[in-house]
Amino acid sequence: MNDPVTLHGYYRSSASFRVRIALNLKAIAYEDAFHHLRRGEQRAPDYLKLNRQGLVPTLGIDGQVLVQSLSILEYLDETRPNPPLLPADPAGRARVRALAQIVACDIHPIDNLRVLNYLRKTLHQPEDAIKDWYNRWIADGFEAIEGMLATNPEAGRFCHGDSVTMADIYLVPQVVNARNFDLDMTPFPILQRISEAALAMPAFERAMPSNQKDFE
Amino acid sequence: MNDPVTLHGYYRSSASFRVRIALNLKAIAYEDAFHHLRRGEQRAPDYLKLNRQGLVPTLGIDGQVLVQSLSILEYLDETRPNPPLLPADPAGRARVRALAQIVACDIHPIDNLRVLNYLRKTLHQPEDAIKDWYNRWIADGFEAIEGMLATNPEAGRFCHGDSVTMADIYLVPQVVNARNFDLDMTPFPILQRISEAALAMPAFERAMPSNQKDFE
Repeated sequence: MNDPVTLHGYYRSSASFRVRIALNLKAIAYEDAFHHLRRGEQRAPDYLKLNRQGLVPTLGIDGQVLVQSLSILEYLDETRPNPPLLPADPAGRARVRALAQIVACDIHPIDNLRVLNYLRKTLHQPEDAIKDWYNRWIADGFEAIEGMLATNPEAGRFCHGDSVTMADIYLVPQVVNARNFDLDMTPFPILQRISEAALAMPAFERAMPSNQKDFE
Repeated sequence: MNDPVTLHGYYRSSASFRVRIALNLKAIAYEDAFHHLRRGEQRAPDYLKLNRQGLVPTLGIDGQVLVQSLSILEYLDETRPNPPLLPADPAGRARVRALAQIVACDIHPIDNLRVLNYLRKTLHQPEDAIKDWYNRWIADGFEAIEGMLATNPEAGRFCHGDSVTMADIYLVPQVVNARNFDLDMTPFPILQRISEAALAMPAFERAMPSNQKDFE
């Protein structure tokens, strides 16, 4: 386990942002390998050998090459359990995973760069239609998460109790994205409060896109 | 744990299809509650209390209301470990989860009914453009999965070895969908072979959309 850990990512990628937060929370030292998505560097043949989808992040760790952020976070939690990213009880774990997956499945992929580029280049949609698209899926998902947190007594300082879980790690990068796209966050006071609490922690703050070496 | 297990689903929903397979594999008896997505029944107020997103599936089990198929499958595997849906070793688990997540995150949500309806109704796209959209994201994901399976010595009769895992449970419903949309499966011989092996098993066959009571 003493090989260097390498995170293949991009400062703007919120899936990379999630993995940066998890590595920071668990105090796992890592090296960055940057792939500039808007210049298409994720399609370079050498990178496609590591990640067949041509997406970021990819994590090199323990002699393994891991892809897909949810899978990477589960692996980190199984092999480096402290601090845990999931509660101990199956029902709590299910709740946290579901919150994370609303972002991971039902918001983020629909707003991913390759989909936005398809809307732009193949379907010839103007930029205002793309912004409406982008914010529509975030608002849909955030409404569900806000409602779930508002009615669940287990929500606390963070999405599940008073410790950070995988749910917060998925939520915060999506909130940061939403702000960049001028989404009105007024309907989501709980999400705002949790994001502010999380971003006050060094593990989140250091993982911010603006704090990455490839930021531009 | 003796309350009846209730699966809120829809025969055409491939996320419901996944949960049906897992329940069958683990021999968990369940009752169906059908919600006709094309008639908008998932937006009924009573159902939205169970599933804030207005999506299927939702699983009522052990006094819990669980949403998001990945979360539900992890819960079933944690509380009813036999037969396991994940390998025992963290690297194998990461590999299986990543394969499942390529389908769960990067194919299926982009082709979900609500997104197709947005393309139709808000962006006024014709049906042939929608079919191209649908097949584009499946083909992208399938190329990655086929490549990953072709180069990984751990692939066997199924995606990971010779036993069914979560990866197969995600793959097979997506292959069934792709066939319904006339996607050319010729470039994906491994996916075809695995799907045929899986669909020969009663747990998969009984979970098929055409074998559900709400099929029409």
